[in-house]
Amino acid sequence: MSDPDALIRSSDPEHPANHICTLCAKFYSLGWVTGTGGGTSIRHGDKIYIAPSGVQKELMRPTDMFVMDFESREYLRRPAAHKPSACTPLFYAAFKRGAGCCIHTHSQWAVLVTLLVERDLGPTAPFEIEQIEQIKGIPRGRDKVGNLGYFDRLRIPIIENTAHEEDLTGSLEKAMEAYPDAYAVLVRRHGIYVWGDNVHKAKTQCESIDYILQLAVEMKKLGLPWTTK
Amino acid sequence: MSDPDALIRSSDPEHPANHICTLCAKFYSLGWVTGTGGGTSIRHGDKIYIAPSGVQKELMRPTDMFVMDFESREYLRRPAAHKPSACTPLFYAAFKRGAGCCIHTHSQWAVLVTLLVERDLGPTAPFEIEQIEQIKGIPRGRDKVGNLGYFDRLRIPIIENTAHEEDLTGSLEKAMEAYPDAYAVLVRRHGIYVWGDNVHKAKTQCESIDYILQLAVEMKKLGLPWTTK
Amino acid sequence: MSDPDALIRSSDPEHPANHICTLCAKFYSLGWVTGTGGGTSIRHGDKIYIAPSGVQKELMRPTDMFVMDFESREYLRRPAAHKPSACTPLFYAAFKRGAGCCIHTHSQWAVLVTLLVERDLGPTAPFEIEQIEQIKGIPRGRDKVGNLGYFDRLRIPIIENTAHEEDLTGSLEKAMEAYPDAYAVLVRRHGIYVWGDNVHKAKTQCESIDYILQLAVEMKKLGLPWTTK
Amino acid sequence: MSDPDALIRSSDPEHPANHICTLCAKFYSLGWVTGTGGGTSIRHGDKIYIAPSGVQKELMRPTDMFVMDFESREYLRRPAAHKPSACTPLFYAAFKRGAGCCIHTHSQWAVLVTLLVERDLGPTAPFEIEQIEQIKGIPRGRDKVGNLGYFDRLRIPIIENTAHEEDLTGSLEKAMEAYPDAYAVLVRRHGIYVWGDNVHKAKTQCESIDYILQLAVEMKKLGLPWTTK
Repeated sequence: MSDPDALIRSSDPEHPANHICTLCAKFYSLGWVTGTGGGTSIRHGDKIYIAPSGVQKELMRPTDMFVMDFESREYLRRPAAHKPSACTPLFYAAFKRGAGCCIHTHSQWAVLVTLLVERDLGPTAPFEIEQIEQIKGIPRGRDKVGNLGYFDRLRIPIIENTAHEEDLTGSLEKAMEAYPDAYAVLVRRHGIYVWGDNVHKAKTQCESIDYILQLAVEMKKLGLPWTTK
Repeated sequence: MSDPDALIRSSDPEHPANHICTLCAKFYSLGWVTGTGGGTSIRHGDKIYIAPSGVQKELMRPTDMFVMDFESREYLRRPAAHKPSACTPLFYAAFKRGAGCCIHTHSQWAVLVTLLVERDLGPTAPFEIEQIEQIKGIPRGRDKVGNLGYFDRLRIPIIENTAHEEDLTGSLEKAMEAYPDAYAVLVRRHGIYVWGDNVHKAKTQCESIDYILQLAVEMKKLGLPWTTK
Repeated sequence: MSDPDALIRSSDPEHPANHICTLCAKFYSLGWVTGTGGGTSIRHGDKIYIAPSGVQKELMRPTDMFVMDFESREYLRRPAAHKPSACTPLFYAAFKRGAGCCIHTHSQWAVLVTLLVERDLGPTAPFEIEQIEQIKGIPRGRDKVGNLGYFDRLRIPIIENTAHEEDLTGSLEKAMEAYPDAYAVLVRRHGIYVWGDNVHKAKTQCESIDYILQLAVEMKKLGLPWTTK
Repeated sequence: MSDPDALIRSSDPEHPANHICTLCAKFYSLGWVTGTGGGTSIRHGDKIYIAPSGVQKELMRPTDMFVMDFESREYLRRPAAHKPSACTPLFYAAFKRGAGCCIHTHSQWAVLVTLLVERDLGPTAPFEIEQIEQIKGIPRGRDKVGNLGYFDRLRIPIIENTAHEEDLTGSLEKAMEAYPDAYAVLVRRHGIYVWGDNVHKAKTQCESIDYILQLAVEMKKLGLPWTTK
């Protein structure tokens, strides 16, 4: 491409290069991407826009964006000042499953839930909760119609953390296969990956799940069970 | 009506179509309407303005609003892009009782209080608290003069959640009859409906009640009782 | 006065009529004045500026202000739309002791601390804490030089709440006499009054005390004592 | 210098005189510098910029800044209205070790962690935690390449508080020698000092550490251990 910067120049606030900046600033204020942690990526036709590694998420600018070709996985735009995000193969795993946007947070509620599940339910158990209205904010599953109902159980698989983020890819993909209806995977002692068909869905599903994870931690403090027998 | 958009065009920030947007953005920052949850509706003369379903509450615009005729319950304006809020019949129940504004939140404090009441006081008990100054922010009851006093007991009924939000209408109306002085109804594992004579009152009553619910959860964590014997 | 509105017209952001608005908006975002609760008053020479009762604190405007003559205690400006704040005699008690600004919050940390002190130390005990750096943000006492030291004990008296806010005045003044060095009085199940020589001091002292009250609640949750033996 | 104000006049938002103001406003909203507590300093070539003592951190302006010559430790600019920060010698200790920016917060998570370590691990123990992804936000140590890994243990020394902040300098420097890889020192019942090679690193490391301290407090509330045996 003769001018890679053309890929990130747009006056449309919903253009991925602009949208990632607004989203990351909001995620910063929610405590999801503290200290350059976490990340966000949007698929836009045959291109993937990815927030760089090591940048303060609330200060991000369109010129910071990496752009990758979906088919060839080659970078169409690669800012010299930045390193590509180590989350890139994980975001890609979501895009291969049809996602339009993938969000990775270091939410403390996610980290705490992975620790509580490990201690109380064992190292292979997923997070499970039911009969919470906000569960209705999560889709029933890929190729299924509509969202989970109030009486459905929300199940989010948990994978073990690894020394290097990119090494999570294998177990993330295995979890996606084992839980084909999941739109999120928790990473023990690390955070969560949430994706959705488009930016709107990924963002609101991420909010709904984070709400549920926070509620689950508060329920545990108060001795309230997550599931009914 | 020849031009339904005339119903939502106004430069007055307190016009319902504008006001609902500002309120919802504020409620988002209070954690009340995460992930498109919750909703707000204002009665304006013989019309009802209602925030749509499934829209990010902090990004709402006047053009997103539904407008309903109070008498006929027919939509005077119905944005093609949106689904009407499933809360509509519940908001309507409040308007029939004379409310000017009704707010529905998914506040985590509301959800936690419904769980604590169920566990500690039983499935039919209302939430009750007394001798908290903020109780004075809640009116004494419909057709009664003034607000509750510091030594009065605040009682908020709790109804069970249902699979579909509109199916809450019957039990909401029953709770309104059983607790004729209540300006709020809690929904187990879901959230709360709060209404008031006008926007100012609904908003400040909703804030006062949410403050009390948060305080009640913290009191429970610290082993402090909600009521004195 | 021929034009009472001249008292509240100024382009100076630190003019009391403007300053109270900025402060109250900030206090709203700190959770101190939820649901029109709480209040703020500034002494400006021989005049007292007071936020009205029942107004949303984050939306306040200079035209909402009451202005009272310090000597005669007569209103120089009295907005027809509002009721004077029930806190007025309590603010006045602080001004008589030389305060330049007095802040009343419904901070939940204040309410919880009054309940914890009552349960753990008895109904007449003050709140006491020591060896917390932020204590150094509180002056040593009226007519004394400098602030409390790290090894000094911070003591804040607690008075019982009454049905009507103005009825607190007597016990507030008694607490001021019994604790002549105090710059704050807690009100059980209600909140706190904090004052200072000027706006800057009242605001920063109120922040420091609120920080300490929040810390004290968290310490209690974790089983950490407030004072060393 | 003929015009000391030239040192603080710049239209560049990243000039230290401007940058300290933006940072402090952000730190205020994070609850780190309540009630004029805490502080921030940036080294800029042979000069050190320091936020003054006793100023509301969210209202700071470039004209409030002190500027010190690094070699001579003489003030090149000294605003008559302010007192120099008592943190100055502590910031200087970090700059002598090569830091480009040093941040001091009164974060409640820092204070609580120092109390929990003292009670549970003894008065000389450092704070230690491992297997938390956010640890990867902290560098491995001075003159070492890269950041800590997920399986590395983060160790932050804790020093005892003193009556006067400047008296912390000796024990801070001793802690820096005893823990040569540390980029932070906790001060019991007081807060934390965090530094970094430049502003970006100091700010993001401070965020990462504060995130970990908050998580550690929540883990303690839930009975979850900080380290694996």
